[in-house]
Amino acid sequence: MTDVVKKVPSLRRAVDPFASVAEELDLVEKNLTRSVRSSERTLTEISGYLIHGGGKRIRPMITILAFKVFGGKRVEDIVDIATAIELIHTATLLHDDIIDAAETRRGKESAYKKFGLKATLVTGDFLFIKAFEFAGKFDETVVQWTADACTRLTEGEILQGFFNRNTEVTVRDYLEIVKRKTASLFETGAKVGAYLAGASPSLVEEMGEYGLNLGIAFQVIDDVLDVVGHEELLGKPTGMDLRDGNPSLPIILALGEGEAAVSDAFECSHPTDEKIQEAIKAIGRGRAIHRAKTFSKSYAELASRPIKKLPPSFYRNGLKTLAHLVVERDF
Amino acid sequence: MTDVVKKVPSLRRAVDPFASVAEELDLVEKNLTRSVRSSERTLTEISGYLIHGGGKRIRPMITILAFKVFGGKRVEDIVDIATAIELIHTATLLHDDIIDAAETRRGKESAYKKFGLKATLVTGDFLFIKAFEFAGKFDETVVQWTADACTRLTEGEILQGFFNRNTEVTVRDYLEIVKRKTASLFETGAKVGAYLAGASPSLVEEMGEYGLNLGIAFQVIDDVLDVVGHEELLGKPTGMDLRDGNPSLPIILALGEGEAAVSDAFECSHPTDEKIQEAIKAIGRGRAIHRAKTFSKSYAELASRPIKKLPPSFYRNGLKTLAHLVVERDF
Repeated sequence: MTDVVKKVPSLRRAVDPFASVAEELDLVEKNLTRSVRSSERTLTEISGYLIHGGGKRIRPMITILAFKVFGGKRVEDIVDIATAIELIHTATLLHDDIIDAAETRRGKESAYKKFGLKATLVTGDFLFIKAFEFAGKFDETVVQWTADACTRLTEGEILQGFFNRNTEVTVRDYLEIVKRKTASLFETGAKVGAYLAGASPSLVEEMGEYGLNLGIAFQVIDDVLDVVGHEELLGKPTGMDLRDGNPSLPIILALGEGEAAVSDAFECSHPTDEKIQEAIKAIGRGRAIHRAKTFSKSYAELASRPIKKLPPSFYRNGLKTLAHLVVERDF
Repeated sequence: MTDVVKKVPSLRRAVDPFASVAEELDLVEKNLTRSVRSSERTLTEISGYLIHGGGKRIRPMITILAFKVFGGKRVEDIVDIATAIELIHTATLLHDDIIDAAETRRGKESAYKKFGLKATLVTGDFLFIKAFEFAGKFDETVVQWTADACTRLTEGEILQGFFNRNTEVTVRDYLEIVKRKTASLFETGAKVGAYLAGASPSLVEEMGEYGLNLGIAFQVIDDVLDVVGHEELLGKPTGMDLRDGNPSLPIILALGEGEAAVSDAFECSHPTDEKIQEAIKAIGRGRAIHRAKTFSKSYAELASRPIKKLPPSFYRNGLKTLAHLVVERDF
């Protein structure tokens, strides 16, 4: 961004669609920092390790944009629930790393690896609790939606466990997992934002659809990057889904193409690096990556549809750009 | 109980101090059963395994008694928060079993042993979420107190981890752990009950003190039973605190008496059964058990103090009896 653009807020908002919610995102950061303070240093340390570890804050951003696009004014009405949603996401990352016995996360040693199972598990609980402390300030509808999203998260986790290293998994199963495990928080953020701005029930539902479809598009690209991404940009090694036996979309599509190297690595409880590299090559040879990207794009387009109907604003631009960026991103 | 007593409610309430809250406890049971239903069978199965696994429901009981003793009328005002508190307790049991790699719980194989780490961890999260769904229906004060209790729980867990197999631990450290890890939910249940019944702030605080002191008395007896209890009554083997390196009061007191067998077992990362039996004998030889029981009694008496000032009622009897039973129990 040039200096001129930086200095003129209206230009800045036109160039950077997220500048329009920069103030609210700053407040979310402050909330996050404040909420991880505990009399127990370990809790603060592990929470901070993840919270200040380079998250994209995409969930708070959706929540705030959905609020502002419907004319939501008082920042204090939205910042706390956006914080809650990011805290829930962070809590699940900590617990996921335990479940996957992950070595790295966001380019660093995972908390699980660095601080051990016990402290990481308890810190995940701690962040869940902090999330509900923030969410509990809102009315019953918001609390219920947030709790429902969390319930779906746990259900998605169980469902994913069921299809772990299971070559019977279909694209339909995949969608069921992703809707719960990833898209539910996107959906809830968008719905809550619109609801708190006073949007009509049908518009609230439409924003929920935006979030849901965006979440699916987002997860598919995550899956694609796990095969074709760059370790330095991703902050974690590629091939993790194969290593962990998680049914990602490229894996499922390549299995459907009958790639033996993929089923070999995916079914194996401890695949060697060589096996994983073979499987990655096999996925790259076929059309799985291309098809997964097309799949992601179609969900991003689905997401954009209700947005187009809204009156033009910086916030509408933000929501549209988000749908675009989620598909085009390299990390 | 004789048939005559059973048939005459007023007699029944006089004989069984908890009969006066039987209706509310039944509703809590129904809530618990309903709340563990999930589209994912695993979540329902593991939740049910623990929820229907013989919990004493002491936390809901305190909450309901504290509500009724101050004239709380509408059962629907108290049952949901009593449910939330029991759900939080159950969630922490699941996560604790992972942390301690526990083999048994309430006379059965632990969920961790039976269902594995992943599913047990996620089910713990699921129950936390259900708890906050119930708690989120209440006003900000109740949500905040409940979240604070949960935060203290996690802090207690971390603090206990710090003193794991650490012979430097003092009775003062122990109290700090127990206040957070066990007594915080007792305290909050009692406070919330009184608050929701409309008791004055000073009475709400006094009830909080009741819960806190009762929780400490309760935990000390748990510790004592881990040394001198009967496996069949407890539903778990004795000597678990020595095996896990958890600083229980009898262990701390016996360490203070210079029992080498106790420090030997307590400091050892994998003590043999023989070592543990030696340590248990050593604790039994000294005055640790007697002193721990006296300690528990003094906290139960502290708990009873504010209760005596209340006008006589079946509920006051219940609260008094509870303080008595907590100390006298064999399981």
